[in-house]
Amino acid sequence: MNYILKSIPSRTAKPRSSGFTMAMDKGLSLREVEDFVETCGDFIDIVKLGWATSYVTKNLKEKIEIYRSAGIPVYFGGTLFEAFVIRDQFEDYLQLLDRYQLSFAEVSDGSITLEHDKKCNYIEVLSKEVTVLSEVGSKDAAKIIPPYKWIEQMQKELNAGAWKVIGEAREGGTVGLFRDSGEVRQGLVEEILTQIPEEKIIWEAPQKEQQVWFIKLLGTNVNLGNIAPNDFIPLETLRLGLRGDTFDYFLNQF
Amino acid sequence: MNYILKSIPSRTAKPRSSGFTMAMDKGLSLREVEDFVETCGDFIDIVKLGWATSYVTKNLKEKIEIYRSAGIPVYFGGTLFEAFVIRDQFEDYLQLLDRYQLSFAEVSDGSITLEHDKKCNYIEVLSKEVTVLSEVGSKDAAKIIPPYKWIEQMQKELNAGAWKVIGEAREGGTVGLFRDSGEVRQGLVEEILTQIPEEKIIWEAPQKEQQVWFIKLLGTNVNLGNIAPNDFIPLETLRLGLRGDTFDYFLNQF
Amino acid sequence: MNYILKSIPSRTAKPRSSGFTMAMDKGLSLREVEDFVETCGDFIDIVKLGWATSYVTKNLKEKIEIYRSAGIPVYFGGTLFEAFVIRDQFEDYLQLLDRYQLSFAEVSDGSITLEHDKKCNYIEVLSKEVTVLSEVGSKDAAKIIPPYKWIEQMQKELNAGAWKVIGEAREGGTVGLFRDSGEVRQGLVEEILTQIPEEKIIWEAPQKEQQVWFIKLLGTNVNLGNIAPNDFIPLETLRLGLRGDTFDYFLNQF
Repeated sequence: MNYILKSIPSRTAKPRSSGFTMAMDKGLSLREVEDFVETCGDFIDIVKLGWATSYVTKNLKEKIEIYRSAGIPVYFGGTLFEAFVIRDQFEDYLQLLDRYQLSFAEVSDGSITLEHDKKCNYIEVLSKEVTVLSEVGSKDAAKIIPPYKWIEQMQKELNAGAWKVIGEAREGGTVGLFRDSGEVRQGLVEEILTQIPEEKIIWEAPQKEQQVWFIKLLGTNVNLGNIAPNDFIPLETLRLGLRGDTFDYFLNQF
Repeated sequence: MNYILKSIPSRTAKPRSSGFTMAMDKGLSLREVEDFVETCGDFIDIVKLGWATSYVTKNLKEKIEIYRSAGIPVYFGGTLFEAFVIRDQFEDYLQLLDRYQLSFAEVSDGSITLEHDKKCNYIEVLSKEVTVLSEVGSKDAAKIIPPYKWIEQMQKELNAGAWKVIGEAREGGTVGLFRDSGEVRQGLVEEILTQIPEEKIIWEAPQKEQQVWFIKLLGTNVNLGNIAPNDFIPLETLRLGLRGDTFDYFLNQF
Repeated sequence: MNYILKSIPSRTAKPRSSGFTMAMDKGLSLREVEDFVETCGDFIDIVKLGWATSYVTKNLKEKIEIYRSAGIPVYFGGTLFEAFVIRDQFEDYLQLLDRYQLSFAEVSDGSITLEHDKKCNYIEVLSKEVTVLSEVGSKDAAKIIPPYKWIEQMQKELNAGAWKVIGEAREGGTVGLFRDSGEVRQGLVEEILTQIPEEKIIWEAPQKEQQVWFIKLLGTNVNLGNIAPNDFIPLETLRLGLRGDTFDYFLNQF
């Protein structure tokens, strides 16, 4: 930090298991990746190459390498896993992870229909090779999953070997955890937390209001995902109570 | 592409007459242009320097040159043409195209009132010097043009020498083809397509939902315009059915 | 300017006391700052490092130096002043300004409750060391300040030594001068202008529609603040009547 302010909430340091932030890279250039890492490196715990953007990304190897040499692991978005599975190309997917020497992978079923046992099977197989993040919740606004099902699925996926589960939102911040308006489904989140340990969940929260909401509910060291690179500095100030939105919230705690 | 996935829709390659994407540059720095070209070069068919941004752009020559040396033609937004015309400076406009050795120009009447015969006249004159894109539709929400008029104007402008016609939207994605909500005027688009060949039209579609809509209506190789540089990688994945929004749509075709 | 167009409104040049534009930097990398300065330097009158982003900004000294060597002063957002004051660390704040050799500072009370006399006191003290910008209006949607109070506070703050007063909006463009919808509180603005000289006010107007509104009310050389770096080129074209939104407005004046 550049100067000393009293009564600042205490953030975890890397490598973190809570207070974790996952970035969504949806097509940064190599130079932008360098800038992102230089400017926000301490706050980036992991980077997701959004959905299947890796398919059309120039210099994919170099990009992954820049992140890696800054100590930041990279993984492919869950939609890519689904794209391979639906095409019966799961073996090719395994080889792909190997080719790019990725140590993380995401298992999801946001765009495809996958029996839950089969999903857990994929988690089990993959978790022998890499660290698995598994995503719960549908990208389809019509498929509303009741809270007890979220919990059941999260538990089974953690048991199957997932390192953490991700609470799904669409990249724009609707569907899944959120209503169409972008508002958080508060009852859902609270019910999940009665059963699943907080540090096992990453909440997708691409919009500022959502980040504020989760910080106020779960504190400075909540795990957040799908954060845009340009929002990292702003998010860090939210976590520290140094932006209007969370200024009072943290001061009232001291 | 970085790896092989089966059943991916087949995209046209450059130089394309369909599956065409026009970028909107509204003030990129030279370094950002280099990055854009390096990262997305294969997908950028042409770049519009938005409205009259070229008036205040530093290093305009260098910017055009970076695009050109990557094989990407550049043209000035239609509002600049209108700014010259309304000031009785059309001759200066011709000299300007010459000074920057531009091979494309846009003729529009979104901000000025121009008799349609006169507009066609400009198209005729300009098309002797450069390749002309002409834009149909008003930027003024109050001026609603009925479908038969869109069609009539498009036909006349193509006859006058326009290479392609552009279906107008405001840069933010309202007005023209879109309702205030950003929603596409579906009946209008469908009626236009009964009369004008698809490959002769570029649809302005700056917002993701609009891009999805046009891709679902006209397929992977629809011509789209006013695409922000940061949206090029995401758009390419939409065209390929590799993002949630178009995932099912394309899979169902195989 | 890259070419000659007749009947373009006449913009002031640097150093400006009107026609002033304040940029909001909320986490640019050093390279992005270089680009911003190179591309838009003539239009950037001053840069605010948004709220307390300076706390977590890497290479803060270098960043300030790049701006400074381009002749652009930098200051810390008002929320940082408030964060020091609420912690009884005002002395540390003075030292901080000194350490970074800043010649501007902002005094505000958007997130804390501060008696107005005390606020004016801070302005008086600070204005002996640096040039003070003071901000009027609350970030809290519930605290609606009636027009006569805005005027009274602005007058007192100018009397206390503020160089200019800033009409507050949240960074996203709601609250303060704006309704929740982002719409400008027109009556408020007009009433303020009956009492406070226009050149003494900087209007925060992060959204395009707000910029258009102020330009149409106060002309090309209105002072605007909280402008995103990417919006500088577009804003300059709005000021010059070279974008659809203000095209007619200026033409009608010639």
